[in-house]
Amino acid sequence: MSKATVSFVINDRPGVSPQARRRVLEAIDQLGWQPNAGARALSTKRSQTLGLVMRRPPELLSTDPFFPQFVAGIETGLAPLGYALVLQVVPDEETERQAYERLARDGRVDGVFLTDLRTDDPRPALMTELGISALIVGPPHHGGRVPALGVDDGSGVRRAVSHLRSLGHRWIGHVCGAAGYVHTEARCDAWRGALADAGLPEIPPVAADFTGAAGAQATHRLLDLDRPPTAIVYANDLMAIAGITAATSRGLRVPEDLSVVGFDDIPLADCIAPPLTTVRQDVLTWGRIAAQALVSLTEGGKFQAAELPPVEFVVRASTAPPRT
Amino acid sequence: MSKATVSFVINDRPGVSPQARRRVLEAIDQLGWQPNAGARALSTKRSQTLGLVMRRPPELLSTDPFFPQFVAGIETGLAPLGYALVLQVVPDEETERQAYERLARDGRVDGVFLTDLRTDDPRPALMTELGISALIVGPPHHGGRVPALGVDDGSGVRRAVSHLRSLGHRWIGHVCGAAGYVHTEARCDAWRGALADAGLPEIPPVAADFTGAAGAQATHRLLDLDRPPTAIVYANDLMAIAGITAATSRGLRVPEDLSVVGFDDIPLADCIAPPLTTVRQDVLTWGRIAAQALVSLTEGGKFQAAELPPVEFVVRASTAPPRT
Repeated sequence: MSKATVSFVINDRPGVSPQARRRVLEAIDQLGWQPNAGARALSTKRSQTLGLVMRRPPELLSTDPFFPQFVAGIETGLAPLGYALVLQVVPDEETERQAYERLARDGRVDGVFLTDLRTDDPRPALMTELGISALIVGPPHHGGRVPALGVDDGSGVRRAVSHLRSLGHRWIGHVCGAAGYVHTEARCDAWRGALADAGLPEIPPVAADFTGAAGAQATHRLLDLDRPPTAIVYANDLMAIAGITAATSRGLRVPEDLSVVGFDDIPLADCIAPPLTTVRQDVLTWGRIAAQALVSLTEGGKFQAAELPPVEFVVRASTAPPRT
Repeated sequence: MSKATVSFVINDRPGVSPQARRRVLEAIDQLGWQPNAGARALSTKRSQTLGLVMRRPPELLSTDPFFPQFVAGIETGLAPLGYALVLQVVPDEETERQAYERLARDGRVDGVFLTDLRTDDPRPALMTELGISALIVGPPHHGGRVPALGVDDGSGVRRAVSHLRSLGHRWIGHVCGAAGYVHTEARCDAWRGALADAGLPEIPPVAADFTGAAGAQATHRLLDLDRPPTAIVYANDLMAIAGITAATSRGLRVPEDLSVVGFDDIPLADCIAPPLTTVRQDVLTWGRIAAQALVSLTEGGKFQAAELPPVEFVVRASTAPPRT
């Protein structure tokens, strides 16, 4: 039997008779032969591996509920396809650039996920320059032709405003995320739009960096206003829970004197008193869909904007009608 | 210039004159030549990649503060060495076995980290069978000859008992982790030892699965005792915070009527009221040291039991003297 026949069978190409194909497969089976991913990657130029480079101080990674859920979701998408995920955590923009250059040079990955895009993010253009297949997870980015899995960051804040308005709140504060991120901008825009649609006046949002300390500080700033809000919507649960503690320390009761809405629905959200009203995003499913979409892209498929599950609004006990 | 000379220079082997070496390096520089990781892995049989396979339902990954910190720590150890991390999340033991078999067969990793060892864990023996270099993160395991980075799971609970005893507590409850894990057993043993050393009677520990719901339930069981404890030590912060809420819902005040100690020092621990007294483990440093140790092992180095940073005991406002 010729080497070409064996190669055709192994690579599942046509032009081999069913008899020959069966004999090859039997021989392979008897020899216990297994393909070697390294050798296959060299000949096919494919590593069957995707990359995720997270840029942030390592010690801050544990404060972000998005990261482990998104990684777990990617895994549920990749495992059935036989793909692996290579992960890197880098501290700054320079190291980030080097990481992508190295991934491209070494052929270690077939494509990468881009998360947490900044408004002036150099990565979309860098991917084009390096010839790396990439998928943005989040709102589309103007600086390049990288497809984006368009997470709807706005619907959560619209749901929050609608819930608070239906309870009778008319003066609602907002502690938004760190400035400079596309998703922060998207949510701020959605916030202004939701207030305008509801005919409510806007208190300027206070930006905070997603940490508890920043959430507490932003809460004090809003409660120090001449006319403090009767409800506050936070960009994540950690800041919301720190906000409840800050309000309580000033003698306010939640929800009687102040309603609080979080974002994420972390496991602790319903373990505290009062349990937190919040926005639940199905990040696990985002990860799975992103993985499937990026594999398809790297295999030459056309990008199809997938339908992501809508956010859920979880009403618990931290919101109530305002005192009249 | 011969192919052998170029190869010797590239692979940094002796026997090449300084002049020849310089000319080769200059030529490489002019050509913009870069090594290809795939090709190098094939010829050196090394992938410069380590693997971490986590076995758990993906949706539970986000409740574990250990995972993102450990991964970030691994990265800080691997990045300077030019190594990458391949991550997999598997739902059950069968898929876990297949994942390791595939990693071994494909030559995708040079070694793997083993975490969350169970008392009857098949992985140490499987690593020997598959010929995969491995490093256990946690107490040593009897079932194989895999080296372990001996995290001292006991010192945290000893510090907790010592702190509560110095406040005057004599009747202390314990909500321990899920049964069947080596680290749960190690901490339970340390718990009994610490109570015995302090001359305190033992309330049987209540096992819980690290979730908030289980922490609340275990708290109610302890508080339903004919003689309820005046203090409870929990195996993680999530259960401790749920325990505070459970105790408060019964009309108890923390810390006046019940002292509470957590484990992990998650970012929320000091954002709640009262801020949580807890045990802080430097998981980031564990990850870094584990990464360096495993790289050394895979490169044929001898395993040296590294010194890990001791746990810190963080005293906040959830502990106080018992009411007399």
